[in-house]
Amino acid sequence: MKATFLYAPGDIRVEDRPDPVILAPTDAIVRVTAACVCGSDLWPYRGVRPVNHATAMGHELIGVVEEVGADVRTVKPGDFVISPFTFSDNSCQSCRAGFQSACDHVAFFGAQDSAGLPTNGAQGELARIPLADGSLVVVPAPFDDTLVPSLLSLADVMSTGHHAAVSAGVGPGSVVVVVGDGAVGLSGVLAASRLGAERVIAMSRHADRAALATAFGATDVVAERGDEGIAAITELLGGDLADAALECVGTEESMNQAIGSVHGGGRVGYVGVPVGGSKLPIGVLFSRNITVGGGMAPARHYIPELLPDVLSGAINPGLVFDLELPLDDAAEAYAAMDERRAIKTLLRP
Amino acid sequence: MKATFLYAPGDIRVEDRPDPVILAPTDAIVRVTAACVCGSDLWPYRGVRPVNHATAMGHELIGVVEEVGADVRTVKPGDFVISPFTFSDNSCQSCRAGFQSACDHVAFFGAQDSAGLPTNGAQGELARIPLADGSLVVVPAPFDDTLVPSLLSLADVMSTGHHAAVSAGVGPGSVVVVVGDGAVGLSGVLAASRLGAERVIAMSRHADRAALATAFGATDVVAERGDEGIAAITELLGGDLADAALECVGTEESMNQAIGSVHGGGRVGYVGVPVGGSKLPIGVLFSRNITVGGGMAPARHYIPELLPDVLSGAINPGLVFDLELPLDDAAEAYAAMDERRAIKTLLRP
Repeated sequence: MKATFLYAPGDIRVEDRPDPVILAPTDAIVRVTAACVCGSDLWPYRGVRPVNHATAMGHELIGVVEEVGADVRTVKPGDFVISPFTFSDNSCQSCRAGFQSACDHVAFFGAQDSAGLPTNGAQGELARIPLADGSLVVVPAPFDDTLVPSLLSLADVMSTGHHAAVSAGVGPGSVVVVVGDGAVGLSGVLAASRLGAERVIAMSRHADRAALATAFGATDVVAERGDEGIAAITELLGGDLADAALECVGTEESMNQAIGSVHGGGRVGYVGVPVGGSKLPIGVLFSRNITVGGGMAPARHYIPELLPDVLSGAINPGLVFDLELPLDDAAEAYAAMDERRAIKTLLRP
Repeated sequence: MKATFLYAPGDIRVEDRPDPVILAPTDAIVRVTAACVCGSDLWPYRGVRPVNHATAMGHELIGVVEEVGADVRTVKPGDFVISPFTFSDNSCQSCRAGFQSACDHVAFFGAQDSAGLPTNGAQGELARIPLADGSLVVVPAPFDDTLVPSLLSLADVMSTGHHAAVSAGVGPGSVVVVVGDGAVGLSGVLAASRLGAERVIAMSRHADRAALATAFGATDVVAERGDEGIAAITELLGGDLADAALECVGTEESMNQAIGSVHGGGRVGYVGVPVGGSKLPIGVLFSRNITVGGGMAPARHYIPELLPDVLSGAINPGLVFDLELPLDDAAEAYAAMDERRAIKTLLRP
């Protein structure tokens, strides 16, 4: 099969590799219909996170089950499935609490499963999915091909935006600031709007992203950052601050922006991978009583809730994909996102 | 009037000072019925937080209003009042949200109010209370003198324990770990029990404190700390971890203990003043989806909720006071707590 590897910063290659096979009776093999590049894939691509060897890339896919192990019960060959970006047993205490991303047996694409067996990256033609029953969600057939981008978004980016909103306690009437105008931030805007937020302020300096934010339900766009950004929010809100902020970047600056955007007792939901140096200033949190929650989204928990809205067309999170390329052009998919020519790139094997 | 000052680590003196007077039309002057020493007072007493000059001590009092400024509407001379440990306008956005400790005009005992006017410490005979309408809560008269300790506890320690429990999302059926067996931790046990927690595990190595924790509703006591403490919790819970942890100390060790005590997606409510170096390990929080909330308790918000339970005898948080001394013996009050001869000392002017 073809699969995507990062050899060094900026060096993406699509190569032929052996097809994955069932290694454990709880496995499934999935033929990929669509995969994509995540903002977090850009960290190693840019050399911010070191790359020491050829690394299998990608952690978002939808596709069709080709084969299952002997112990798999809930998915079968021919099923169309969404794979969350984390694998989980869906039975441990954290899973039962709805946090499958903190599963006792959590595992990731392009690494090893909890038994030490190798996993594939999602940016390929096939992938072995460990703990298939606990991980995969079946999409009821048939559905229109135009839904592919939105279905794929549930694997990570839409579920992650939703997690930011849920973690920030967003509900009917909330006043929300969204920090980050990448695909996750934009999904956070959509999620906050879907959850009934009264006011959703998107922080964006890019016209195309601001336009999509507005299409997703943002009521206001603030281009300024830092103290000027907070001043702009305060002016929009008649002297008040927001109830909730979604931190969708992962840097110290973005976290401070989120924390500074909410009133005393406000909540920050964060989903930006803290690779970039995100820190939590406990002195400020303590004196202002800011609650911080979030982390890796339990997509497995949210997909069943969000899927009906995608299938009905009530939400169209797939609009975050503004570039679609064949898998062979994965290098260009990365470059386009790195150079901000694309918000998010969908890959078709 | 007599008032208590810290001159240097370990050097507590009760001295004569001029009586406070009304400085702003929103002030009240309160004659102190009872004050007390807080665990956080021990930080400067021990030299952990530097002391550069004679510092007016104490931030917890109950007493009788002697005089009010021209603009005060809700309290009058003769009223028996509880003063929260923070002053607040009770009208700004953060106050309206129920977080008066993050008020736009927040001010503290023994410092300056938001107009820059000096405030008294609470460990004295009289105190000027700025923003009296927004700060003071009137206790309906008459009440029995035996309720004095419990009423005083609402000024800080019981409200703070309650804040830890509320911030950790404790409710009916919760499984809760309480880190810290000082007066706040013990109050947290009582608060969690009052909120309907099914299981309350108190971490304590002191027999007297463990006994009080049990009297306050702890179902289990764990003496071990660190990884051994977490192993003991896991054993008690049949392999599970807690839903919520209350961090009531303020050190990095205690914060890590709390974080390690909850399952993925669990919540930590923290109220320990992070003077001792409390840090938030964002990598762990992110991967385990632990929510951290809390900070300075909005006692002004909680007193009206907790007061009826004190007056009815449903809760007796005043049991945290195991030593009562005249104000003149303030130095001994500090020494007794510093040397762990007392959990918390009540002072009568």
